[in-house]
Amino acid sequence: MKSATMTMNTPDLPPSRQEILARMIRPRSVAVIGASAQFSKVNGRPLKHLLEKGYQGKIYPINPKYQEIGGCRCYPDMASLPEAPDLTIIAVPAKDVAASLRAVGEAGGRAAVVFSSGFGEMGELGLAQEHRLRDIACEYGMVLCGPNCLGFINAYEHVYATFSQYADGPTNSGPIGFVTQSGAFGTAIAALVRDRGLGLGYFINTGNEADATFSELMGVVIEDPRVRVAAGYLEGIRDGQALIDLARRCHELGKPLVLTKVGRTVSGARAAASHTGSLAVEDALFDAVARQYGVLRARNEEQMLDMLQALSGCALPLGNGLGIVTQSGGAGVMMTDRAEEVGLAVPVLEPETSRALAETMPTFGASGNPVDITGQFVAEPALLRESVLILLRDPQVHIGIVWLQLMNAHVDMLIEIFTQIRARASKPFIVCWVAAPDGVAQRLRNEGIVMFGAGERAVEAAACLARYAAMQKGYRADAIQDEPAHRIDLPFGDGAVPTVQAVALLEKAGVPMAPVTLAATADEAVQAWRRFGCAVALKIESPDILHKTDVGGVVLNLDDEPSVRAEFLSLMERCSSSRPQARLSGVIVQPMSSGHIELVVGVKRDAVFGTMVMVGYGGILLEVLRDVSFRQAPFSEREARAMLDELRMRPVFDGVRGRPAVDMFRLSALLASLSRWAAAAEQLSELDLNPLLIGSDGPVGVDSVVILRTRS
Amino acid sequence: MKSATMTMNTPDLPPSRQEILARMIRPRSVAVIGASAQFSKVNGRPLKHLLEKGYQGKIYPINPKYQEIGGCRCYPDMASLPEAPDLTIIAVPAKDVAASLRAVGEAGGRAAVVFSSGFGEMGELGLAQEHRLRDIACEYGMVLCGPNCLGFINAYEHVYATFSQYADGPTNSGPIGFVTQSGAFGTAIAALVRDRGLGLGYFINTGNEADATFSELMGVVIEDPRVRVAAGYLEGIRDGQALIDLARRCHELGKPLVLTKVGRTVSGARAAASHTGSLAVEDALFDAVARQYGVLRARNEEQMLDMLQALSGCALPLGNGLGIVTQSGGAGVMMTDRAEEVGLAVPVLEPETSRALAETMPTFGASGNPVDITGQFVAEPALLRESVLILLRDPQVHIGIVWLQLMNAHVDMLIEIFTQIRARASKPFIVCWVAAPDGVAQRLRNEGIVMFGAGERAVEAAACLARYAAMQKGYRADAIQDEPAHRIDLPFGDGAVPTVQAVALLEKAGVPMAPVTLAATADEAVQAWRRFGCAVALKIESPDILHKTDVGGVVLNLDDEPSVRAEFLSLMERCSSSRPQARLSGVIVQPMSSGHIELVVGVKRDAVFGTMVMVGYGGILLEVLRDVSFRQAPFSEREARAMLDELRMRPVFDGVRGRPAVDMFRLSALLASLSRWAAAAEQLSELDLNPLLIGSDGPVGVDSVVILRTRS
Repeated sequence: MKSATMTMNTPDLPPSRQEILARMIRPRSVAVIGASAQFSKVNGRPLKHLLEKGYQGKIYPINPKYQEIGGCRCYPDMASLPEAPDLTIIAVPAKDVAASLRAVGEAGGRAAVVFSSGFGEMGELGLAQEHRLRDIACEYGMVLCGPNCLGFINAYEHVYATFSQYADGPTNSGPIGFVTQSGAFGTAIAALVRDRGLGLGYFINTGNEADATFSELMGVVIEDPRVRVAAGYLEGIRDGQALIDLARRCHELGKPLVLTKVGRTVSGARAAASHTGSLAVEDALFDAVARQYGVLRARNEEQMLDMLQALSGCALPLGNGLGIVTQSGGAGVMMTDRAEEVGLAVPVLEPETSRALAETMPTFGASGNPVDITGQFVAEPALLRESVLILLRDPQVHIGIVWLQLMNAHVDMLIEIFTQIRARASKPFIVCWVAAPDGVAQRLRNEGIVMFGAGERAVEAAACLARYAAMQKGYRADAIQDEPAHRIDLPFGDGAVPTVQAVALLEKAGVPMAPVTLAATADEAVQAWRRFGCAVALKIESPDILHKTDVGGVVLNLDDEPSVRAEFLSLMERCSSSRPQARLSGVIVQPMSSGHIELVVGVKRDAVFGTMVMVGYGGILLEVLRDVSFRQAPFSEREARAMLDELRMRPVFDGVRGRPAVDMFRLSALLASLSRWAAAAEQLSELDLNPLLIGSDGPVGVDSVVILRTRS
Repeated sequence: MKSATMTMNTPDLPPSRQEILARMIRPRSVAVIGASAQFSKVNGRPLKHLLEKGYQGKIYPINPKYQEIGGCRCYPDMASLPEAPDLTIIAVPAKDVAASLRAVGEAGGRAAVVFSSGFGEMGELGLAQEHRLRDIACEYGMVLCGPNCLGFINAYEHVYATFSQYADGPTNSGPIGFVTQSGAFGTAIAALVRDRGLGLGYFINTGNEADATFSELMGVVIEDPRVRVAAGYLEGIRDGQALIDLARRCHELGKPLVLTKVGRTVSGARAAASHTGSLAVEDALFDAVARQYGVLRARNEEQMLDMLQALSGCALPLGNGLGIVTQSGGAGVMMTDRAEEVGLAVPVLEPETSRALAETMPTFGASGNPVDITGQFVAEPALLRESVLILLRDPQVHIGIVWLQLMNAHVDMLIEIFTQIRARASKPFIVCWVAAPDGVAQRLRNEGIVMFGAGERAVEAAACLARYAAMQKGYRADAIQDEPAHRIDLPFGDGAVPTVQAVALLEKAGVPMAPVTLAATADEAVQAWRRFGCAVALKIESPDILHKTDVGGVVLNLDDEPSVRAEFLSLMERCSSSRPQARLSGVIVQPMSSGHIELVVGVKRDAVFGTMVMVGYGGILLEVLRDVSFRQAPFSEREARAMLDELRMRPVFDGVRGRPAVDMFRLSALLASLSRWAAAAEQLSELDLNPLLIGSDGPVGVDSVVILRTRS
């Protein structure tokens, strides 16, 4: 039962963690500590399923109370086992888990799944117990899944290391690997996958993740060649880089990774924090990373199922052109609406296509796209088949949807037609059959055809396929550009970098900045104004004042000597009286900049995802619209462009009301360059460019804050 | 079988259209012109269903080829009938429809449903035929439903005047009245209603609406006391006022009106225009009218079904506070996310509630909101019952959702618990049961409990109930304010009103305007500048130049005599050379206005909905964000406030970055006042106020265009 993907090490070297995990989910032997002969109980259910559902490996129940359970010899303890099992299930009270885990280690076991609850989810005390488990696992070089988890299922090899209700029903294997942080919700999703006739190859509940994490477990699942689609449910993650590595590996393998993460909103994040006991990852950052690394995010379990159905059953389209054949004009309109909303085109057909359709169509149908064939195909089945085939031949059409409803009297004929289309068409298509007769979905699935019961769902599924195909292409394009960043040392201590030096840093990082001069006296300020030869702004400079406007520390648009002189003095006066403790270094003199677009650019260090760069619409609407997008640094020009394209204010870049269009190449290059610098400058803690003005001469940074922090 | 709601007129007076329609959908007798003995054919199916499904009235098949069909005497023509039937179905080829319709009229029939296609949907020629049908109906005082329609079903009285596939299955009656412009999509929706175990009282397909329209037919359906919820599917409407009257009547009756309208997007509208052959109604206006008159808009058929299920099965909550009891923390987070997105609060519980919950809960559950009871309730059923009851008693909670999954082994117990909660709770609650065992939904429905299979759907349904309850309250509040508008005559001819007069009109309409003076000479311009005593703008004035900036016709911020004089001359010079044909009246002199918020306000006459007022965010982002909202004029201050509250830029009104908050009362009053004036000024064709600046002194209109057109 050894899998082709797994090469075990020689006996001399201890196995790698990856190897242990791979063996854990495909074990040749399973021990159950605390095994019960009562098969309905948590500690009895794994045995029941292992025995009844055809597991072929060795089963070792461990419980001093029994001689035998379900025909298997029962052992009093781990030490009595004839061999070290590949997997040990621990189903004992919380207080006994540590001892059991140690016993597994002593017996040479490498992997344990701990069902028991009563750890981190109970608060501080439980968390300390949980850390103890992690330490024991570490001590023995073991992998630990859980605690407080439902365990896992490997449906290919009939491994039921779980007490999930899902295992009570049929658990047919299929191409989907599913890993979930939630037990109850994960069980529900698994059951919904089953209800749709799709199959899970793996079902893994990670529980408290004292040791093995979501990304690690999913990482081993996707290496199984039988898994073609990865699906995950998340509540929070601690190691962002592991998730990113997982996403990259999925793209290398050409396997889509679909994730649902809850905690999108402020209220949801609050609920998540109370539920998981840990701070939820910031959703906007998670979302940005998902976009950047080609993860398909599903907003809820229903959308996840729709995506899984499409991704596991349908070929990928080579573009985003949707062709629609419909029995109802209204349904065609609705699908066209949705297509526009989710980024699919419903292209005007080539003249040749229209001509061919018109020849096929009844007079009262519509041969545009959507093609409305009305109910006439009941009398003329060829009409349906030919119109779909003609439509799919159009070069602008990359994927098709066929909409129909009811038709209880014509099921056999229709399935025959769809099978013929499937055989003859080179492009993917989806059937949308509303209020379909029973059994139709299964029969179509048997023919390799994906079916949905609602038009918008079919369109969203098609969009998911097109998006994944584009992500795959993008991944390959960017993979070449990856290069290790050279670390940049900044010659400054912790805290805010003085403005003049910060401006110099930013110029080096690739951001054109408005020039600045520090004036310690009114005379110096006047000299600086003369040198610039244009109207200037004066801004207080102090390591203790970050928000200059709050203390009246900014004066704009001065263009004569008396004003510069007077304002210098009153600025210093005002700031020293409002902030008597602040050290005032003087005043920054800066020529006034102009621009018709006001952006804001920022860098921050996130505990989960590391260096994140933000760009967004500045000015009065910044806080209101929150029209910003994020990417993990460093990133390419292509990614920077994608980031800008995500902004709602995007059309402004093309020039509105006669303003010139923005040089997108230059702006993307600026962001990419800044991202490389920010990623390499490890001391950088926070950077704010607000505003970055875009005028006819291109972008120029006006105000900046750069804060450093030496990392321990 | 005479209905209590219907009072027929005395025989002396011809019945009203309303009375004819009411009789048509509850006929005592049905004739079928073109009746066939082949019950599978379009012209045989109504007879089949009328006979088999228990219609109690008289049935008159009409076809000279038969003596008898299905045990009913068959008549050779309308003239041979023993009485004038309440309803006549016409199922003959298109070319024979006109003659049949005339025969119905001659025989004293008042209502006809025309199945036949081959009319307006075929183009110009067909449309002319369709108008002929309308004229014949009019001539005889008849009501005509169709042509090109599937007809209708009245499930209460077993009237099957249809050939829809929907009638092939069971058509149990229920509290929902459904009227659809699409036959095929409507049939699909009806089948989905059936699949959910909900019942349609009426199913009506309006077809081409040569005579009876959607609003008219729905209008008669909602008067039936057995109908409690109205559901409609729309592709376009011609008479907006009829729809508004329908919406008002629904509120008077306390019956929710749920509408799905396709053609939301540009692509969708294009597809709709090609499908219906008519210009689709502008979606933003439809949407605004729906909000204004309390229509619940469903984005697709699935959302419509969810809404129908909630509205027909659940009491209305008295507020928007959602209490969640869940078996999965993750599902709780997801529902909380969705609640925030759809406008529900997930309130922090009162201390007393938390205390009571904590006493009930197991130690590892969470007694916040969401209340996470984990799977423990399987062992302790009372835990579930009590926690829901305690939660629903919290004064901040107005509706509850209980989330659970699978539980195949505990169905009876759970249904018993929910039934107990239903009996003891005074507030509504919804069960969300994911991957529920078969038959659970039906059993809960029998107990008067609404169940969904996905958490987000349950939350959206709860939001729909809360929204409808709020709309009902709002309707009652506004109903008092309705007053007939006095017509206002404007003493100007067609075309653009000169600026000075336009400003005076707008001031009368309640809009504070920046003052203006028309200067015919440079001397007059200088005098005006002196009189204003501040910086001014000069703007060219010409009935032939609407877009002044396009011709360089605007100069801003002049504050000395030489500038005013010079710019006057160069402005006149520039405009007369760029537009030699334009009549130049001189130059408008206007003091410079300032403000920190730039709005745009407009009025237009829409062919469907009449006078529509728009307000939105002005400036550079206007075209990009399209952050505007509409209302039909006239409207109340309350409605104006709602209109402003819809804007995405809404938080700006509260004052951002230290700017003062906007006086919302004053701004709402301005909009309401303008709306009353605009509705009363029938000559008004178009009005543009751009910008309306809001500064510390309140709003002031700066540039305006007022265009009049005498209506024929």
